[in-house]
Formats: sequence, structure tokens, C-alpha cells
Amino acid sequence: MILAVCLNPAIDLTYEIARMVPGSSHPVRSVLTRAGGKAVNTARVLAQLGDDVTLCGFAGGDRGKRLRSALPDSGVLDAFTEIAGQTRQSVAVFDSDQVTVFNEPGPSIDAVEWAALSAAFEEHLRDAAAVVMSGSVPPGTPPDAYARLVRIAHQHGVPTVVDASRTQLANALPAGPTVTAPNREELADALNLPVARYDDLVAATTELSRRTGGVAVVSAGTDGIVAVTEDRRWIARPPRVLSGNPTGAGDALTAGLVRGLASHADWPLVLADALALAVSAVASPVAGEIDAGIYAELRALAVIEEI
Amino acid sequence: MILAVCLNPAIDLTYEIARMVPGSSHPVRSVLTRAGGKAVNTARVLAQLGDDVTLCGFAGGDRGKRLRSALPDSGVLDAFTEIAGQTRQSVAVFDSDQVTVFNEPGPSIDAVEWAALSAAFEEHLRDAAAVVMSGSVPPGTPPDAYARLVRIAHQHGVPTVVDASRTQLANALPAGPTVTAPNREELADALNLPVARYDDLVAATTELSRRTGGVAVVSAGTDGIVAVTEDRRWIARPPRVLSGNPTGAGDALTAGLVRGLASHADWPLVLADALALAVSAVASPVAGEIDAGIYAELRALAVIEEI
Repeated sequence: MILAVCLNPAIDLTYEIARMVPGSSHPVRSVLTRAGGKAVNTARVLAQLGDDVTLCGFAGGDRGKRLRSALPDSGVLDAFTEIAGQTRQSVAVFDSDQVTVFNEPGPSIDAVEWAALSAAFEEHLRDAAAVVMSGSVPPGTPPDAYARLVRIAHQHGVPTVVDASRTQLANALPAGPTVTAPNREELADALNLPVARYDDLVAATTELSRRTGGVAVVSAGTDGIVAVTEDRRWIARPPRVLSGNPTGAGDALTAGLVRGLASHADWPLVLADALALAVSAVASPVAGEIDAGIYAELRALAVIEEI
Repeated sequence: MILAVCLNPAIDLTYEIARMVPGSSHPVRSVLTRAGGKAVNTARVLAQLGDDVTLCGFAGGDRGKRLRSALPDSGVLDAFTEIAGQTRQSVAVFDSDQVTVFNEPGPSIDAVEWAALSAAFEEHLRDAAAVVMSGSVPPGTPPDAYARLVRIAHQHGVPTVVDASRTQLANALPAGPTVTAPNREELADALNLPVARYDDLVAATTELSRRTGGVAVVSAGTDGIVAVTEDRRWIARPPRVLSGNPTGAGDALTAGLVRGLASHADWPLVLADALALAVSAVASPVAGEIDAGIYAELRALAVIEEI
């Protein structure tokens, strides 16, 4: 079983409108509602691949109920911690040529709720082959929440993938996640290093690996994925570039990384799988879903090169 | 008791952000949640004035539950009809200098749900001194929904205020609401007449009264309120112009009109009350609430002039 941690899940609403005019009123043509949050998207990809996933995190209020009822019917075990606050909502407004997003901050978490989450996490660790934790955290969560969870996982000998940003990412580094997988901007922000040029990105990813003592994996956009272990470095490239919806590509990437850890696969194979998942997520119109045909094709054709 | 009909109520969310940039992601700084929809706002104003209100309409899903739990604690009797669909949501995004609104269309209503609403409406009519019905209708509602409700009210001898738009307003006119109170744009749209100039607005309001055989009341913005009965015409003017939040001013205006009908007051007094409510709603930052001090002052100082 893979344990996924989504501390700040959301009800993701997608609104379709004709044209965005700031300062005016817009009738919404269609509304799509789904369970969201980065680790929820990752759990959905894992379930689609047939992996068993247990999902931990905070959920509360009527939106929390809706979130839990909107999880995939099979493959995802609901292990959310019930909280007093209301689960947040995100609104993505699509007009003809752009998407404008509004992200609520999330409910306030108190110390009792954090303790309950930590206990649930530790309980489910006993059956976990690997852990993925990703995304923002709600107000009131300890600033070293991910670091604490990584240390608990270490105590149980369970490997971890962390995809976080800002304070949570900075605090998690000394705890030594098995794999750290921020995006390019989060990497630059955490290390205060340049990442715009490819060489700079490779250097920053190497520094990230040095800081954690583990593996660092960062997407270089259409260039592919850079991965650095203690003694080796790879670039994983797709055989062709696909256009589509990049939302959720990072969550499919972490799905590939955590299932690689769970299965003890060699890094070149893990990277081919993670790259294929990320690219096939771009080809799917919905975050947290992959195009199965493209996934099968790319997994075989991904180019993994040592650098 | 005043019976208020809100067929398409909403959970109104107010998001505060730093600056709206279409095509980008925005962290939401603060979220305000309240029960909304035009007749819900009107009911809230009436409750604030000490009137007893019964609220009919469609409500469903977890948002419907939240809506019903967010009604005023006293003065408003919940007579909503439970439906299978989910109550809609509206999102108003405030940045430093503008508000951008997204209105969901509402749940689908079927024939059984419409019949249940009609029955609930007729049941509560027995105790009603007057009825106010206002706002949009959800998909699946009969295109002559307001006309049907007005006819039922006529059969029971209960006077009606209708604030509607487009097809619903056009279809309601032959049913003869006691008072028809669209806004300026809705009036122009329903009659296909010019309304931009004050004289045109008075002529169009007069035509609206002729079509319904009842009273027509239309806001002329900062000029005041134009009212036309079978044989008289008035302009009601505030002693001074207030700036503020115009959202909900129309709903406070209809609150004044329906409580005037319920108390059989003379038209000049009703117009003074309605004008004072509309202007004091502009002075309140929240739709559906009035500034009580300004209301008391303006009610005494409103200028009602026959034209």
C-alpha cells in the first residue's frame, strides 16, 4: 500500500465562462466539481494504475464530506482526520483562452487535530511500502509538518517523497526525505539559486540532493526531468513533446516516484515511469488523470540519459 | 407574515485578493460565506426590521443545508423545498478597486419538485399578508413560474411584488402582479423601450404599469425611484446621495414595497420607506443588510413628488 498525505485538500470547481472581464458579472456556463489537492490527484493516478492507496489529511464541514464522497470508488482508502473547520475550495475559471484560479487558504488546524493526524499517519505507516506527501498546508499546521512526518516515516523504515514549497520545503530538507520533488520555482525559492538555464537547474538539483542526503527530482519542463542521487545524475526525456493541460503533471510525476520507491525499482526505470505519467497527465484534460494509451507508449520510449 | 420566494438561492462567497490578473493563480486572503439570492437578501432586510418572513424556494445538497443553516436566527421561517440537485454558489472576487462575480446557473428542477414548491407556496399563502418573489430561476423551472405563482396568490387575495428579468418577467406581466419592480435594464429588455433618459424611464415605467394593470416601480439610480399606479405617478428622491455598495439595494427596495403592501400604507409613505431602505442598503457593506441610522433619517427626509 502507498500512503498519500494531503494536508490541505480542496473541492476543486471548474467554471466555464464566455470571456473574463474583471469588474463585471459572469454567468457560469458549466460547473465541474471534483476532489482536489496535490496528493489527492496523486492518489487518483495511483488508483488508476491499480495501486492500493491510503489517503491521510484534514477534512471538515460539508465540503469535507463532499470531498470524501468524491474520492475514487476503488483503490483509495479514506483515512482523513475529521476537523472542526471547513475544507477549502479552489475555483478555476476557464474562458476561451486562459484559466484564472482562486485558491482559498484552508481551515484553521489546532494542536489536537494535528496530533490526531500524526497518529493516523503513524498507524497507516505500518502497512505502507512508501509515502508521498505534497501540496500546501492549512493555517495552524506546524511550520515543520512535513519534516515531522518524514522523521516518523524514517523511524518505521518507510521511504518518502516530498513535494512542498517555501517554509515547509525548507524545513523538510534536514529531515532527509528519500526523494524531494519540488517544481523549478519552488527549488529556486528554497535554495536561493538560479534555475532558469538548464545547467543552473542541474546544479541546483544536485545541491538539493546534497542537502537532503537523498534523491532530488525536478522537472525541466519540455527538456524533461532532472534526477540526482548521491552518486549519479540523469535527464529523462520524452520521445516527443505533448501539449495540453499541465495542471496535475507534477502530481502524476510524484505518483511515478512513490510507486518506484514502493517497488524498489532501479532509478532509470522509475524515471521512465514517472516521466511517462507526467506527460500522459498533460495529455488528459483533467488533473489527476492520465491518458493510458500515451502512458504505455511513452514508458517504453522515454530516453534516460546519464549526465 | 410576508412570504418571500427565492427559487434560485445561492451560497454567496466573497473572496478578497490582492490584484486580479486574468490567466494567473490567486491566493485568497479572506473568505466570507453567507446565504444569498435576491429574495433571501430581501428576507434578511425584513427580519432586520422586525417583520415575520416565511421563505420558500428550492434548496438541495450540502450547500442547501449550509444555506438553510445560515438564515437569520430570528424572524425568518425556513419553508424551502428540498430538491435532489445542489444549491448554486456565487463567487464575488474583490480586489483593491473592483469586484468580479461568477454566478453558477443553479441545479436542475424537475416537475415533481416544481409541484412540491407550488404546494408549499399555496400552503403558506394562507397566512401571508403579501408576497415578494425575485431573482433568477434554476434550469428546468417553468418559463412562466412567476406568472403561475402570481395567479395562485390572486386566487387567495394576497398582493404580490415581482422583481424578475427576461422571460420570467415578460411572462409575469399578463398575470398582473400587484407591484412589478424590475431594474432599469430589465425594464428596457422586457418592453424593448429606451430608458437611458429620465423622461424615457418614466414613460417606460408607465407602460409597464399599463401592461400589468398594477403598480410599476423602477429605480432611476441617483435620481431616485419612479413609481406609477393606475392614475398617479411619483418620483421619490433621497435628501442626499450616498456612495457605497449598490449590491442588494434593489432587494431592500422590494422589502419596502412588500411591507407597504402588507400594511396597506399609502403610496407616498411606502415609497419613502422603500427609498430609505434602498439607500441605507447602499450604505451597508453587506448585501441584505441596512444601516439602521441612515434608514431612520432618510425615511423622515425622503422627498416624494407627484409627476
